Formats: sequence, C-alpha cells, structure tokens
Amino acid sequence: MDPLLNLRELGLTLPAAPRPAGNYAAAVLSGGWLHLSGQFPFLDGRLAYTGRVGAELTEQDGYQAARLAALNVLAQIHAVMGGFDRLERLVRVEGHVAAAPGWFGAPKVLDGASDLLVQVLGPRGGHVRSAFTPASLPLNSAVELVVIAAVRES
Amino acid sequence: MDPLLNLRELGLTLPAAPRPAGNYAAAVLSGGWLHLSGQFPFLDGRLAYTGRVGAELTEQDGYQAARLAALNVLAQIHAVMGGFDRLERLVRVEGHVAAAPGWFGAPKVLDGASDLLVQVLGPRGGHVRSAFTPASLPLNSAVELVVIAAVRES
Amino acid sequence: MDPLLNLRELGLTLPAAPRPAGNYAAAVLSGGWLHLSGQFPFLDGRLAYTGRVGAELTEQDGYQAARLAALNVLAQIHAVMGGFDRLERLVRVEGHVAAAPGWFGAPKVLDGASDLLVQVLGPRGGHVRSAFTPASLPLNSAVELVVIAAVRES
Repeated sequence: MDPLLNLRELGLTLPAAPRPAGNYAAAVLSGGWLHLSGQFPFLDGRLAYTGRVGAELTEQDGYQAARLAALNVLAQIHAVMGGFDRLERLVRVEGHVAAAPGWFGAPKVLDGASDLLVQVLGPRGGHVRSAFTPASLPLNSAVELVVIAAVRES
Repeated sequence: MDPLLNLRELGLTLPAAPRPAGNYAAAVLSGGWLHLSGQFPFLDGRLAYTGRVGAELTEQDGYQAARLAALNVLAQIHAVMGGFDRLERLVRVEGHVAAAPGWFGAPKVLDGASDLLVQVLGPRGGHVRSAFTPASLPLNSAVELVVIAAVRES
Repeated sequence: MDPLLNLRELGLTLPAAPRPAGNYAAAVLSGGWLHLSGQFPFLDGRLAYTGRVGAELTEQDGYQAARLAALNVLAQIHAVMGGFDRLERLVRVEGHVAAAPGWFGAPKVLDGASDLLVQVLGPRGGHVRSAFTPASLPLNSAVELVVIAAVRES
C-alpha cells in the first residue's frame, strides 16, 4: 500500500509542507514519536477555509477544510520523515472546528480528515480523535488539526 | 487495590465503553502509551449533560458530568486493556468544560473527574490536568475529557 | 549553555512553581516523558493577566502573558527535575489565548512563550506549537500553556 499512489488515485498531490507561523518547529521527532504543529487548511500558501461552520461555512465546507488540513498533515510527515516508510502509524488526531453558537456537528466535519488519512495510509492511518468546537481559531481558520504519530527513527 | 471493587464501593458499575462518533478508534496502544479518544458524559447511550456551566448547568451539574465522563474513561481503559492490571498509571487528563461567558470555575468542575479516577485507581490514578472553557463542545456536551495513560503492552 | 545564567542575563529569576488548582499533579514523569499541567501567567501567587486579547488586553499584553506563563513552565520543569540537566528537550507547546471575537493574532502572542523558552534553553527549547483562541480560559486567564518534554529519568 503506497500512500503516494493512493493520493494519486484520489486525484491529489502532496503540497509543500506549510511553514511555521512563529518561533517554533513544524515537527519534532523524539523517542519514537513524531509531534506535529497545528495544521490548517492551507492551499498554495493561503487559508482556503475561514470562518465558522454553522454560520459562514456549511458542514460540507467544513468537511473539505478538514480534508485539506489532513493533506497538510501528510505533507508534514512526508517532509520530516523523507517519505512514509518509517511511519509506524498515526496515533492521535485532535480536531478543532470553528463553530457558530448552536452548531454541534463536529464529528461529521472531522471525518473529512479521518477519511483521507485512512484512505491514504491504510491501516497505519487509524487514530483516536477528540473533537472541539471553539468560537474561533487562529487566523480565522475553519479547522485546525493536531497530530501525533509513532515512527521508526532510523 | 482493586479498581472494580472500588467502583462497587462507590455504588458504580462500569458501563459499556462508548463507541466512536466517526471514522476513528476509541483507543490506540503504541509504545507503552494508551491514547483515548475524547470521552463525554454518556449514560446508556445518550449524553446525560448538555449545555454550559454557568448558564443551563450549575457547577454541581458540571462536577457530575465530569465524573460521568471519567467513568467512561475507565470503561474505555478496561475494554481495550482487558482489565486494569496492565495499566501502569494515568498520565494526562485534559478537561474541557462548556462555559457561559463570565464563568471561570473549571477546576472545581474537573475535580469531578479527578476525584473519581483517584478513588477508583488509587495512586495509579494521579495525573496532570489542563482545564479549558470553550463556548461549546461537540454534541452540545457539557464536558469532554482527553486522557493519556502509561501501560504495559503484554 | 546554562539556563539559569540565561535567565539572569534576561533579568529574570525562576519563581516558585505554581501549585495545582485541584486534585491533580503539577507534573508527571513517565517513560522518558515529562507532562506538565496547564500553566498560567501567575506572578507571586496571582494571575497577572486576565481577560481577552483584542478586548481587555492588547497583543503586547498577550505577549507578556505568554512569556510569564512560559516562565512558570520553566519553574515547573526545574522543580520536578531538580534542575535542567536531565531535560533532553521540549517537544510540544500548546498555547491557548483568550480571544475577543474578530481577533486572530495568536501566533504573535504565543511567540512570547516560544521566544523565552528558546532564549533560556537554547536548542533544547525548540518545540512544535499549536495555537488556540477560545472565548475564555479558566480563572479568566489570558493565556494557558500545555507543555510536553523529553527527559532522562535518571
């Protein structure tokens, strides 16, 4: 199961891994764990989805935003690990969805991330998830994903 | 110190572990760590506490919601580890409490979770905690807990 | 590179590590990882920065709040590890900034934490970061930091 081939079959290509927005690292590898910085629905250097699901954005927009943020997760893993060979498995995905008052459907939106990660990585893409619906996210992003993975360091 | 006996002495029984709300796993075990998905105050398949502390709910409601979510944490650990024998210790509890504007008492509410975890697991139940007070949580839940534990894998 | 000397050159001294606000531990050490409880901008036992950036507080206030919370992170590490010798490196910093509606500048504010951690710890202070902008935080704090570090246990 080749993740890059799976991406191609979905009509997707791996973007350049987004750069940190401040004085921190995009990824840190330590003790067999890969920690990634928060990932957003960036496309070609700009946020493709801003605003809140349930107000400025529909649930379908949110699903696509989560999927795009997950594509950037894959790009970060590929960039720091030099490919997917040394990825043992994803472990945790925390999904934050900017939500209008009264909108509570985060699980459906975050399946946009989970579906892509499993489609591309196969069994290695499985993960626990926790969903959050803050009133807003940095940069007015619609979605933010925080991912931890288990890796072989050499 | 038998966690199941402790539960019984508190008049509690372990519920069935809640199932994931989307395309993810309830728990992932990797490298001696057990990661759990976000746990909510589910009781018999439905959310028992919805709304915000400081508005629809009192602090005492919030305490009970946190305690119920922690009971589901225990159910998840028991389900995935086949009991509590291979649980070394809890490590982290992140507690999210849906909060009305101007209400800031999350630590008291989250003691509902911490108290139960320590009562049931004893010294193995100790943990670091971080508290958050978002405007809302998925499914309009009052509380969400994210837990990481150290375990023996075999 | 001596972190305490670096602190002195910045005109700072390590405060007493803040005590937990409830039934939990300030820090847990397990399997080579140090987990810290949420840290706030406490100064001499009281919160020095309350309210939301973009409303009651400016971005510069927020930067100082993040810096002060990071000083408490350093105090916690020093207290639990008996110094900085056994700190391998910081790994993750999650930064939560209480935000007024329409304010989205969390990365600049959280550099207040990241800048201090790198100034004091040098290369060991590098970390991945994720930024969040909830409507409020516990105790009406302006900032909360959640930190994970890699350590040598003996």
